[in-house]
Amino acid sequence: MPTQETLIPLTGWRRKLYIIIYEADTRLGRIFDLALIIAILLSVLTVILESVQSIQAAWGAQLKILDWCFTILFTIEYALRLICIHKPMRYVKSFFGVIDLMAVLPLYLGLFIPESRFLADIRILRLLRMFRILKLTRYIGEASELKRAMLASRRKITVFLVTVVLLVVILGTLMFVIEGPEHGYTSIPVSIYWAIVTLTTVGFGDITPKTPLGQALASVVMITGYGIIAVPTGIVTAEIARGSGAKSKTAEAVSGTRLCPHCFTEGHDWDARFCKHCGGQLPRPSKGEVS
Amino acid sequence: MPTQETLIPLTGWRRKLYIIIYEADTRLGRIFDLALIIAILLSVLTVILESVQSIQAAWGAQLKILDWCFTILFTIEYALRLICIHKPMRYVKSFFGVIDLMAVLPLYLGLFIPESRFLADIRILRLLRMFRILKLTRYIGEASELKRAMLASRRKITVFLVTVVLLVVILGTLMFVIEGPEHGYTSIPVSIYWAIVTLTTVGFGDITPKTPLGQALASVVMITGYGIIAVPTGIVTAEIARGSGAKSKTAEAVSGTRLCPHCFTEGHDWDARFCKHCGGQLPRPSKGEVS
Amino acid sequence: MPTQETLIPLTGWRRKLYIIIYEADTRLGRIFDLALIIAILLSVLTVILESVQSIQAAWGAQLKILDWCFTILFTIEYALRLICIHKPMRYVKSFFGVIDLMAVLPLYLGLFIPESRFLADIRILRLLRMFRILKLTRYIGEASELKRAMLASRRKITVFLVTVVLLVVILGTLMFVIEGPEHGYTSIPVSIYWAIVTLTTVGFGDITPKTPLGQALASVVMITGYGIIAVPTGIVTAEIARGSGAKSKTAEAVSGTRLCPHCFTEGHDWDARFCKHCGGQLPRPSKGEVS
Amino acid sequence: MPTQETLIPLTGWRRKLYIIIYEADTRLGRIFDLALIIAILLSVLTVILESVQSIQAAWGAQLKILDWCFTILFTIEYALRLICIHKPMRYVKSFFGVIDLMAVLPLYLGLFIPESRFLADIRILRLLRMFRILKLTRYIGEASELKRAMLASRRKITVFLVTVVLLVVILGTLMFVIEGPEHGYTSIPVSIYWAIVTLTTVGFGDITPKTPLGQALASVVMITGYGIIAVPTGIVTAEIARGSGAKSKTAEAVSGTRLCPHCFTEGHDWDARFCKHCGGQLPRPSKGEVS
Repeated sequence: MPTQETLIPLTGWRRKLYIIIYEADTRLGRIFDLALIIAILLSVLTVILESVQSIQAAWGAQLKILDWCFTILFTIEYALRLICIHKPMRYVKSFFGVIDLMAVLPLYLGLFIPESRFLADIRILRLLRMFRILKLTRYIGEASELKRAMLASRRKITVFLVTVVLLVVILGTLMFVIEGPEHGYTSIPVSIYWAIVTLTTVGFGDITPKTPLGQALASVVMITGYGIIAVPTGIVTAEIARGSGAKSKTAEAVSGTRLCPHCFTEGHDWDARFCKHCGGQLPRPSKGEVS
Repeated sequence: MPTQETLIPLTGWRRKLYIIIYEADTRLGRIFDLALIIAILLSVLTVILESVQSIQAAWGAQLKILDWCFTILFTIEYALRLICIHKPMRYVKSFFGVIDLMAVLPLYLGLFIPESRFLADIRILRLLRMFRILKLTRYIGEASELKRAMLASRRKITVFLVTVVLLVVILGTLMFVIEGPEHGYTSIPVSIYWAIVTLTTVGFGDITPKTPLGQALASVVMITGYGIIAVPTGIVTAEIARGSGAKSKTAEAVSGTRLCPHCFTEGHDWDARFCKHCGGQLPRPSKGEVS
Repeated sequence: MPTQETLIPLTGWRRKLYIIIYEADTRLGRIFDLALIIAILLSVLTVILESVQSIQAAWGAQLKILDWCFTILFTIEYALRLICIHKPMRYVKSFFGVIDLMAVLPLYLGLFIPESRFLADIRILRLLRMFRILKLTRYIGEASELKRAMLASRRKITVFLVTVVLLVVILGTLMFVIEGPEHGYTSIPVSIYWAIVTLTTVGFGDITPKTPLGQALASVVMITGYGIIAVPTGIVTAEIARGSGAKSKTAEAVSGTRLCPHCFTEGHDWDARFCKHCGGQLPRPSKGEVS
Repeated sequence: MPTQETLIPLTGWRRKLYIIIYEADTRLGRIFDLALIIAILLSVLTVILESVQSIQAAWGAQLKILDWCFTILFTIEYALRLICIHKPMRYVKSFFGVIDLMAVLPLYLGLFIPESRFLADIRILRLLRMFRILKLTRYIGEASELKRAMLASRRKITVFLVTVVLLVVILGTLMFVIEGPEHGYTSIPVSIYWAIVTLTTVGFGDITPKTPLGQALASVVMITGYGIIAVPTGIVTAEIARGSGAKSKTAEAVSGTRLCPHCFTEGHDWDARFCKHCGGQLPRPSKGEVS
């Protein structure tokens, strides 16, 4: 939605706040972002440790407190993010807005559904945003190159996945009919699960064919899976090989550290004055703010 | 077989029926096809659910009824497909004719061999045809590109598979001699099955070498398998890489939604007046029929 | 070794025999070769069936007799192969000479070491020669293309394999020290076996890490293995991609059905008059013999 | 650190020693290096055999003695390496200096921590240096080509690995919440371990999903892993394909057997007079020393 009305307060403490929280080019902004990275990593670690029974037994209380501290911290941060812009809803609905919300909800939900609180470590996804802070523009470039290759071959991959799905449904059914419940193929869904386990060459071995016919079919499945793994590889490789020839602009000129206050997209060039996505004006940190 | 005598009635209700059932360009045709997709998906779902004991116990009767409804529905559809053309046998012998038959037979067979009724969900194969309905011409293009790559490298892949087969027979025999029945290698076929499980890096673990010599040979097998998986990948990748250079005509100009009434092949161009496979005339839906 | 003195009798029944057994261009030669293929397949099938206890119990005697029939048959064939040339030792020492011997020895050895008789189905290797009979010159071409790609990248693959070996030795040792015998890592060789099972993503699961540290290291091993599988693939793919550009001569002009009587190499052109390997003269079946 | 002051004694027995130990171009140098290779292989074999209980029981004493002999031998060698240069610390801190130390320490540590003595076979890493002795310059070339490909794609691979790590953390957490401790997913770390086992298609089967929901998620994980294995492969393949076009200088002109006495780097050209890394002068074995 091309729009010119700006989202950010033009003056005052809210503008300061905005620059600190959303921009990464000022000293304060960098400090804030680095603090955030550390907080996220520590909070994820807390959740993970909490799930280990022995540790839970020994340090349960302390971990729970830590957990709450981080959640409150992130809640405050989330609130600040909303306060310092004019149209909070737009941020809430943006990609990172959703992730930031997901980072704080689980623990509150945990008050009602205990299990769910472990989902809190989904906040690790917030690290995705941190690429830009570490000024890893080249990495952003490479990443976008991989994304491009993926997108360019998404149709081929869809065709491939559809084929795989049809295949596993049929193979699963056949195995269910051949081996039957007495050999662990208790139902068609379970047999389909087995077919996927086998076709992808994972091979847990929790369910295995016992009858000669079943083993023969399984052999066919395995050799098929062994062979068709070549297809996605071939697709992606061909794409990357082609793409890597042309120097990717992104890897060079993009700062990846500037954020559009209108649609919250990133990857704007150093010298960009307007958002390439929504046409909104991009703020420049005023000299005074840059150290 | 080049032939000019047309299969479809030139006038009357049978022609109307033909347009609806076989063509996808008229409103009625589209409605019919979409209804069919839904019916197929639901019927497959029914069969799958039926195979789950708990659900079977609770809803067995209702599912069985549903099952029969779908089968009768598909039987009627199959009959209509035969009625509205002059040379039914040609359709029966065509690729989709066989699949459509396979979609209805299992349940009838189920009256005699209970197990076989689960094969009913092979009717999921009918979805293959549905690509064209959803006007997924680009996907058809990509698919045909993959198919081309596969065909172009079929010889190399054959050579590769023959090598693999010789390999697993010999490796299986060696393991049978080394480990013997007391370690689970009860016979050469079973040992060959193990060799395939190992060479394809699936590794169920239902049979594993116990003797040092057996484990040494197994290590060789695994590293071999790990190494030669490079071969099919290399073959297909090289093909796709070469192919993807040239823009594939199919992806562009083919409608993929028109059907030859003489040999029931698809993928005819929008402006094609005759079938490129059998030379038979292609019907154009009369203006009145198009909405 | 360049040599001009011919190995084959110039006249008489031995020459006839030579043409029948070694050449594939005369009617008798083709019949002989096809009979041989069938005999080989059947004999391999016999050995395989013999290893299945149930079948062994029911048909043991008959299979043993069949087994002996085939062995005697192949022994006679082997003798004939020796009789109808002047320098038998040269054939004995040639690649196929060794395989042909391996095809008959096991059963005789079986008189002393019962187990070894199952090795008889190594005679399946004789099928390698049969490519030329079925006039699969194109396949021979493709095969030689793959072989070329393999040879061209043998050094890279060696470097890769050496790295893998160093890796598994070290990883195996670490796991042995970390997990120890009580968790199934009874010795360093076994731990190395485990490392190979894991690095190649086979993952039998007969030995698995129990301690957190062990599982952490295992995770590293798995991601490593998952990553470095890219290397051999990349190597071979690059080779094939380069090679497949140039039309391979072999696929076209080579007959693949002519045999040098001096060094027993194959793949001589239709119009070749001398062996390209040893310079010996190539025999042409006299018109009278060709039907 | 560019520096001109040489590390090696210009005359006397220490110079002789230096040439023998560090250079591979004199007869004595070659003999020394080959002796070293054999010693390393034997010592590694000793350690491995020692870990096998049965052998340990029968030959424990002898192996322990052998073990000590090798360790003392390598200790002496290490000492000599230090004696015959002026700035020993520089060697100690160099890559191979560290490895050489690691090769002797474990057994001494073993006096205090028995287990650790098995780490002695990490000395197998010393073989890395042996490439140059066997004058395997072409292999060194290939190896450096692979290294180049790896380095060129390190960023893409980092991005890929980061994605994988985020993925397994989230998938592990989900499985922990879905399946819970009663099905073997005792904690989030364990669940992450499971996610890695599954995503890399290793599939030990020591932990497997039991609930339908868990199996459904597992299926997604497996197909994801099956699909994204294409990415690293694609990356490396594209790199190798590009690189293998240009003839790599290394494979040709580099001797790989000359060593800089200042920074202990290798791979200097035959005719190089100064180290390309630190600018230090490279010693030429005096004619008298070359046989």
